Amino acid sequence: MPALKATLISGHVTWVGVVPARDLTLSSCPRDRLHLTFAGPEGEDHAGLTRPSCLRVTAQYEPGTEIRNTRQLSIVSAEDLEAIRRKVGTEFFDPGWIGATMVVSGIPDLTFLPPSSRLQFEDGATITVDMENRACTLPVQVIEADAPGHGRTFMAAARGRRGVTAWVEREGIVRIGDEVRLHVPDQRTWRGH
Amino acid sequence: MPALKATLISGHVTWVGVVPARDLTLSSCPRDRLHLTFAGPEGEDHAGLTRPSCLRVTAQYEPGTEIRNTRQLSIVSAEDLEAIRRKVGTEFFDPGWIGATMVVSGIPDLTFLPPSSRLQFEDGATITVDMENRACTLPVQVIEADAPGHGRTFMAAARGRRGVTAWVEREGIVRIGDEVRLHVPDQRTWRGH
Repeated sequence: MPALKATLISGHVTWVGVVPARDLTLSSCPRDRLHLTFAGPEGEDHAGLTRPSCLRVTAQYEPGTEIRNTRQLSIVSAEDLEAIRRKVGTEFFDPGWIGATMVVSGIPDLTFLPPSSRLQFEDGATITVDMENRACTLPVQVIEADAPGHGRTFMAAARGRRGVTAWVEREGIVRIGDEVRLHVPDQRTWRGH
Repeated sequence: MPALKATLISGHVTWVGVVPARDLTLSSCPRDRLHLTFAGPEGEDHAGLTRPSCLRVTAQYEPGTEIRNTRQLSIVSAEDLEAIRRKVGTEFFDPGWIGATMVVSGIPDLTFLPPSSRLQFEDGATITVDMENRACTLPVQVIEADAPGHGRTFMAAARGRRGVTAWVEREGIVRIGDEVRLHVPDQRTWRGH
């Protein structure tokens, strides 16, 4: 009996993009498709099989330690983005503002997907969810630049709605409009706390 | 606030080993230390950055598809092994019989650790838990060969006690006797079912 179970839950890809150069801007730019390699999306500055560890993992690593890159992609749900948009009070919310790689609609409670879930796309490309992504302050200025007065509410609006980070398990192409199917670890809750 | 949280839970490494050649035997042979690279333990036949997909993931992939290797290591708990030993009725239970890479004592409910948990060793080497490992039938014959009459009870005895599969997040060396510290994803349960 396999431990990774296909569910009946599926959604659709509504947006894809890449961050071309982090030192210039956090923002991601829209694309019509993503080429996923084992190192991440082609043209994405967060790609790489490994990465230097950052401030998010100082409880585990000295900053700059070479670790496997589980942050190749940032996936957010269209439903979470809409909730953030309402709270920040803009007419639209550009997924590029938060450096998203992909927006998916129809997967319930996407930000809290079980870690090690898999999202599989139409041509077989598959990504593995590492865990919840946490809001960082960088988008505040990006939003302020495009929608003055709306950036300051972002942090509170984005709490628990920032999606997940993920990495490529199987290479392939993801297109806007693709169906995406959810697979989850089929195991009981840990009783070790 | 980082999503990966250090816990106060720690354990100790009580055994390490590698499977030198799967086509000869499933069994792992004891070592006094493991050199962990991003591709897995040196000398381990299950190592590799990628692997051809196997029968465990036919719900996701055609067998033989190149996917990232999340099964570089098989970690079991000393407490689970002792429970299996009592049920199969042998005087000792060799971790090599089930092809284990590492035995750890003191981590509660290890088989059901939250997916994406990290186990960090004394020199900083760190592995990421993919998910529960499920018992396969291969050890039955291995146990029968060493302890005639005891192999047939293995499958029932090992249910829910087969540990986890994992892959290397940070390279380093793991020695018998090393302390191992547990880090877990700090997020609520998924409400999407």
